Amino acid sequence: MSFAWTPDRFNRRVQQISQPPRALPSPPEIVSLAFGSPDPRLFPAAGLAEAAATALRDFPAYSVALQYGNPIGNPVLLGELAKKLEKDEGRPVEPGSLTITSGSSQALPLVFQALADPGSPCLLETPTFLGTVRHIRFNQIEAVAVPLDDQGLDVGAVGAALDTLSAQGRRPRFLYTIPTFNNPVGMTMPLERRLALLDLCARHGLPIVEDDAYRDLWFDAEPPPTLHALDRHGLVIRLGTFSKIVAPGVRLGFVLADPAVIERVQMFKAEGVTNGFASLVVGTFMKSGGLASHIEVLRRDYQGRRDALLSALAREMPDGVTWTRPTGGFFVWLTLPPQADVARIAARMKEEQVVALPGTECYPDGRGSHHLRLAFSLQPPERLAEGACRLGRAIRAGLHK
Amino acid sequence: MSFAWTPDRFNRRVQQISQPPRALPSPPEIVSLAFGSPDPRLFPAAGLAEAAATALRDFPAYSVALQYGNPIGNPVLLGELAKKLEKDEGRPVEPGSLTITSGSSQALPLVFQALADPGSPCLLETPTFLGTVRHIRFNQIEAVAVPLDDQGLDVGAVGAALDTLSAQGRRPRFLYTIPTFNNPVGMTMPLERRLALLDLCARHGLPIVEDDAYRDLWFDAEPPPTLHALDRHGLVIRLGTFSKIVAPGVRLGFVLADPAVIERVQMFKAEGVTNGFASLVVGTFMKSGGLASHIEVLRRDYQGRRDALLSALAREMPDGVTWTRPTGGFFVWLTLPPQADVARIAARMKEEQVVALPGTECYPDGRGSHHLRLAFSLQPPERLAEGACRLGRAIRAGLHK
Repeated sequence: MSFAWTPDRFNRRVQQISQPPRALPSPPEIVSLAFGSPDPRLFPAAGLAEAAATALRDFPAYSVALQYGNPIGNPVLLGELAKKLEKDEGRPVEPGSLTITSGSSQALPLVFQALADPGSPCLLETPTFLGTVRHIRFNQIEAVAVPLDDQGLDVGAVGAALDTLSAQGRRPRFLYTIPTFNNPVGMTMPLERRLALLDLCARHGLPIVEDDAYRDLWFDAEPPPTLHALDRHGLVIRLGTFSKIVAPGVRLGFVLADPAVIERVQMFKAEGVTNGFASLVVGTFMKSGGLASHIEVLRRDYQGRRDALLSALAREMPDGVTWTRPTGGFFVWLTLPPQADVARIAARMKEEQVVALPGTECYPDGRGSHHLRLAFSLQPPERLAEGACRLGRAIRAGLHK
Repeated sequence: MSFAWTPDRFNRRVQQISQPPRALPSPPEIVSLAFGSPDPRLFPAAGLAEAAATALRDFPAYSVALQYGNPIGNPVLLGELAKKLEKDEGRPVEPGSLTITSGSSQALPLVFQALADPGSPCLLETPTFLGTVRHIRFNQIEAVAVPLDDQGLDVGAVGAALDTLSAQGRRPRFLYTIPTFNNPVGMTMPLERRLALLDLCARHGLPIVEDDAYRDLWFDAEPPPTLHALDRHGLVIRLGTFSKIVAPGVRLGFVLADPAVIERVQMFKAEGVTNGFASLVVGTFMKSGGLASHIEVLRRDYQGRRDALLSALAREMPDGVTWTRPTGGFFVWLTLPPQADVARIAARMKEEQVVALPGTECYPDGRGSHHLRLAFSLQPPERLAEGACRLGRAIRAGLHK
């Protein structure tokens, strides 16, 4: 009599899928530019400690936050977040249009599941966030890739993809885009392009999932309004997160959308209310003004890191390599020339102890081999320079045979 | 040109399912015995505040907890929890066999999804936790009901259900049970029954999902070992939670099972790592000994509430009404006589402003109309007595026409 956990005892979906790359800590000799992890030295620990102490003395507030509660989210955080979003967007947050999630990592599959059935098509801008590629695949949604150009999502290509699907009698359930400080490319869609995209999507009745994790972290000038702020039809679903401006470990994000969408999103939120304790602490941190001033600190700091990485790339990269110059966010997107031996470069990067995200992780279809995503968020300026130097040596080894 | 969020724009599953009953706060004139919410006056706010202050001064610890991280969970909490479980179960926690979840509310669907495909059958003890009924239904798993008797799950009935399915060429993916301080019934399965159940399941290769939310809250004597502690085949998956012993709003629970199960469970955890911040705070609270002494306080307090409710029921209930006498946990299960007019009782309960959970919520198939679940966790003793008094009046109105 013996029992074994053979593969047939599990859900068929998990039998085919491998674990995604995880942002785990790497040993100090390695320079990791792979993940969009914020630098822990920038976590507002003292501010959170003070907020926790204040909040845990306030019985009416903590008795709600520590209890089971409304799946829409903790009222203190919802109130503070609505104020921030109203200021950001210049329009009121309607009742029922906001819900708290466990980071935008949870918001993504909640929204994808709420909007699509297994087998439904969606339009996916590419390259894109690796988590999105994984969540779409895991939920058995069909991703129709639409390319970016240097101003963001190519609206003409969206129209063409819609026509192709329509000719097959199919309607995509949503379009996924990261218009501001794009992950992985780093660019931002200008206002005119935003308006053209909204116009096209409204005409075709195509909901837009606007993933907006980096908006607060602008360097040179404030970015254009969100698609959600510009939307007059209620078709934009905006996702946001506290991971980059507070810390990933608070596990707080949000969805801002038509109440009909929020209602459905809730139904996929298995754990009911989301992180009441962390919500109360972050809500209290916001209320005190702590978050707003912390964001100022982050902007200056990450701007310095971006500058350090861009200067180092200009110094270290051989001819033929190109890269983007982000005006906010965490990422630079590097393009290798077509003749580059990418396998050799990858091998040399291992020897040099420098890590970047392979571009293939940012596509649903195996493309991206001649791209690398470089995150400048985790490493201080001197390590970014060192990383660029090591990367330069590795790339040169794959260009000159 | 107009856009509308018509039902066909959403996942088919959410078009049919209504929102579950939620443990929302009720106005003070109502005596709610409906939900297994702990009393907020028993939340260890000072202990959590102290733990947060300590933890947020310790850079190495908080830099890990506030970062993205390993989906298995925060190392501080995993370490403290493993120590507690090893003490509870008298056996080592094997590496890779424990993962943190967002309460057991999240653990349930993660485990159900990992073990079953849509359409797969499972065996479900009934009556059961209402969240379980909902998660099984939402994940399109077929629930085959197996009854409880006064010693817990009826092992003979499990065997019969297995035979029936086997004759149809079907194999249930798991058996779900709450053997200790059962929700909603309140009873505990004795040791002999546990061994008999394990023996049967091992012979049939049937995994057991052991939901164990209330174990620490025993009143009269320590409960028998968990099924997981007694299992020599690796087929028991134990779920637990910090919701009842710390607070629901920390959103922390766990799964303890064979590493092959844990690995698959992770893949359904969309948000990656679970609540690092709350994990660090609760882990630090455990490390200081705060949780262990808090559990002692809770035991005495909830025992007093159970006693108050049982005495009040003995005073207030008319002849023909019966109820269970739990030795731990949060619940009493009330049975009305067959001739009771349940619609009239429900209407009178509304007038009397007393709320209990209708027994029908605890079955997957509409049964349970002559039962009510009474939770003694949220209300202090004097309100429990008042609730029983109101309930007695309502029930009498439905018995004597």
